[in-house]
Amino acid sequence: MGDRPVKELNFKTPLEVAHKPSLNQIAKTGVCGIMDVISPGVIPGSDTATLALLGYDALKVYSGRGALEAVGSGIKVLSDDVCFRCNFATVKENLIVLDRRAGRIANEDASKLAESLQKIKLENSSNAEFLFKNTIQHRAALVVRGPKLSTAVSDSDPGKAGEKILEIKPLDESLESNLTTEILRDLMEKFREVLRQHPVNNERVKHGLPPANIILCRGAGTIPKVKPLPKKYGITAACIAAASLIRGVSKVAGIKLIDVEGATGTPQTDFKAKANATIQALKTNDFVLLHVKATDVASHDGNIKLKVELIEKIDEMLGYVLNNIDLTSTYLAVTADHTTSSTTRNHEGDPVPIAITGPYVRRDDVEEYGERACAKGGLNRIKGMDLMPILMNLIGKTKKFGA
Amino acid sequence: MGDRPVKELNFKTPLEVAHKPSLNQIAKTGVCGIMDVISPGVIPGSDTATLALLGYDALKVYSGRGALEAVGSGIKVLSDDVCFRCNFATVKENLIVLDRRAGRIANEDASKLAESLQKIKLENSSNAEFLFKNTIQHRAALVVRGPKLSTAVSDSDPGKAGEKILEIKPLDESLESNLTTEILRDLMEKFREVLRQHPVNNERVKHGLPPANIILCRGAGTIPKVKPLPKKYGITAACIAAASLIRGVSKVAGIKLIDVEGATGTPQTDFKAKANATIQALKTNDFVLLHVKATDVASHDGNIKLKVELIEKIDEMLGYVLNNIDLTSTYLAVTADHTTSSTTRNHEGDPVPIAITGPYVRRDDVEEYGERACAKGGLNRIKGMDLMPILMNLIGKTKKFGA
Repeated sequence: MGDRPVKELNFKTPLEVAHKPSLNQIAKTGVCGIMDVISPGVIPGSDTATLALLGYDALKVYSGRGALEAVGSGIKVLSDDVCFRCNFATVKENLIVLDRRAGRIANEDASKLAESLQKIKLENSSNAEFLFKNTIQHRAALVVRGPKLSTAVSDSDPGKAGEKILEIKPLDESLESNLTTEILRDLMEKFREVLRQHPVNNERVKHGLPPANIILCRGAGTIPKVKPLPKKYGITAACIAAASLIRGVSKVAGIKLIDVEGATGTPQTDFKAKANATIQALKTNDFVLLHVKATDVASHDGNIKLKVELIEKIDEMLGYVLNNIDLTSTYLAVTADHTTSSTTRNHEGDPVPIAITGPYVRRDDVEEYGERACAKGGLNRIKGMDLMPILMNLIGKTKKFGA
Repeated sequence: MGDRPVKELNFKTPLEVAHKPSLNQIAKTGVCGIMDVISPGVIPGSDTATLALLGYDALKVYSGRGALEAVGSGIKVLSDDVCFRCNFATVKENLIVLDRRAGRIANEDASKLAESLQKIKLENSSNAEFLFKNTIQHRAALVVRGPKLSTAVSDSDPGKAGEKILEIKPLDESLESNLTTEILRDLMEKFREVLRQHPVNNERVKHGLPPANIILCRGAGTIPKVKPLPKKYGITAACIAAASLIRGVSKVAGIKLIDVEGATGTPQTDFKAKANATIQALKTNDFVLLHVKATDVASHDGNIKLKVELIEKIDEMLGYVLNNIDLTSTYLAVTADHTTSSTTRNHEGDPVPIAITGPYVRRDDVEEYGERACAKGGLNRIKGMDLMPILMNLIGKTKKFGA
C-alpha cells in the first residue's frame, strides 16, 4: 500500500490521493507512525516482511523463500526438507527465457501440468523424494526430501526474460551440496521432458498462449525455526490471505489458515468475503491477520490508477470491518508489509504508514492515513518486529521482563 | 508515572490531568520524547527498567530480582552468592497461601522475625551459609553463600493467594542445582518451624493480624556483572531512593546510596526531604538519581485520584529542586521507569515520556509534560539504555568512538 511520491500524481502517493474515509477514521481515532519493516532503507521481501510483522527477527530466522512458499501451498514441509520457489516459464529451444511466467498461466493448466510432474520417479542413490505443487498462476513450490541434503545450491531462474536459464551449481564443497545439485539437475531435466510434450502445452500453443515448457527454481531454503505465536503469547490466531507466501509464513508462525472463497491474491479478489471472514474469525481468535495482495500487484505493474482504486476498495472493506466489530474491546492495526513504488515497480526500503486504534491507545492528532500524515503521529518511527509486542502489550498478552 | 488513557479521566492520563507547572516548565525549556525503557511493547520490571535507565542492556545482564533486592537491603553480596527475593506470607496448615504479604506486615514485626530466622544453623555438607534481611513491610532478601551453588532452582512463591506453595526444584541436572535446592528446602523448613511458634506471630494473631508463618522465595539470581558508572564515565554518582530494588540496582552500578530520613518508598514519603537531599548531592556529584516509588504504588492499587495527587507532589518537589539548582550548569531529565496502568493495575509496555532540560539541549516546541505531548518532541522515540549515554554526552563525559 505504501509508495513514494508519484510524478503523475503531482508528487503525492496513491494512498494520499485515494478517497479513504475508513482509513482516515482509524488514523483519527488511533495512534499513528511510520515503520521500517526490516530496518531503515532495507527493502523487505513479502516473506521477510511478514516474518518481521509477526514479531520475528527476519535477519536471523529467514532461510529462503522456497520453504515458506511450499508451506503456504499446503505441502507438509518437514524441518530438513530443502524447498524451492518455482515458476512455470516459457523458454526457446536454446533455453533463453521468453516469459518467466508462461503468460501468467491459468491455475487449471498449471494444476494439470503439476499433476504430471509429480508422477516422475527420481532415480538417485540417496532415496531422496520430491513434492511439487502449483499455487496461483505460474507459481509453484518444490520440496526435496531425503537424508544429507543442503540448501547450498544455486537458482536456475535467471530473474528476467531474454537470458538463458542458469546452470544449477553447488554453493559449497560439501557432499550434501553436491548431492542436492545432482538431484535437482536430474529433476529439472525430467520436468522439461514431461512439459515439452504435454497435451496442455500443445493446447496452449494452438490457442496462441506461451507453453509452460520449463520449471525455473530459486530460493533454496528450509522452514525458519521460530516459536509459534500461540506458544509465545498464549493466543489463538488466524490468517486470511490468499498469497501462498503469506500463508506459508503464517503457518510457520502457528497461525490457523482460513480459506475464503473468492480470495485470490489478485486485484479481482473478493474484498467483502475477506472482511466477513475477518469479522467471524475475530469472534474466536485473539489475533487475526488480514492480508491483501492486490495493491502490490498494481504497483509491480506500474498501474497507478488501479492502485488508487484498490486502496479505495481496501478502505471500503475496512469500513465494513469497523462497522461489525466491537471497538471497545478490539484493537485494529493497519499497515503495509512494504513500500512498493509505482514508479520503479519494485519493493522499496522506504518506511510504511501504521495506525493502531482501540480502546486504550494514546490517540494522537493525526487526521489522515498516509505515508506523510502518519509520520507525525504518536508512535513516531518503529520497527516491523516491534509491532507484534506492541499489539500483544495492548491486549494484555505480554509477560513482564523482570520484577 | 506513565499511564494509558483512563476512562474515568475522559481518556486522558493521570499525568495529563494533573496540575504540573514544574514538569511543564521542564518540557517547555527542554527537549522531549517518548522512551521504550526496554524495547517497544516489552513490559519492564522495576529492576530491568532501572538497569536500562542506567545504561545497561538489561536483556543481557539481568539475572533475577533476588540479588538486586539483596544488595538494596544492605547485604554485602559477593559475586557467586545466590540470592532470592522473599516475602513474609501467611499460609494455612495445608500450605495454601492466604496472604502473600502477611497483611503488609509492619517493619518492626518483620525485623524481629528476621532476627530470629538469621540465628538458624544450616546443616549441610558443603559449608553453605545464609544471610536473611527484611526490607520494607513484607519484603525480604535471602542470600545463600558457599561453593558449588547454582541459580537454577525454582520458586516456592506461587505468585497468588489461594494456591499451595510450590515445591522448590532443581532447574537442571547439575550437582550445583541439586545441592542448592536441598539447602533451600532445608532452610525453608527451618524458617517455617521458627515462624510458627514465634511470639511476634502469637501477638499478631491475638490482634487479629495474619501471622507471618512462612517465607516465600523467588527470583534466584546473582548480581549482574556490569561496569560501574564511575568507571564507565569517570563520574561521581549518588542515588536517592527508598525502594530496595532501586537501591540494589544503583549500588551494583557503583552509585553511592544516600539515606534520607522520611523517604519510605510509599505515598507517605517525604518529598521535600528527598528534594533537599538531591540539591545537596548535586553539589558534590556529577550525577544524581532521584527515584519516587509512590506513583507506581497508586497505579497498582488502581487509585487514580491518589496517582494524580502524587504526580502533583512530585511536581512540587521538582519545583523546589528547579529553584535551588543552577540550570546554567545542570541538566535535568524527568522520566518514568515504566508505564503502570491504573486500569489494568499492572506494569505495561507502553513508552514513557521523557524531557531533558539544561543549558545546551536542542529545545523543542513541546509545552507540556505528558505521554502524548512529549511524543511530538525533538528526542522522538528513544530506548531506555540510550538515556545515560545521551545525558553523559550533554555533560561532556562520553568519549569519542573513532577518530
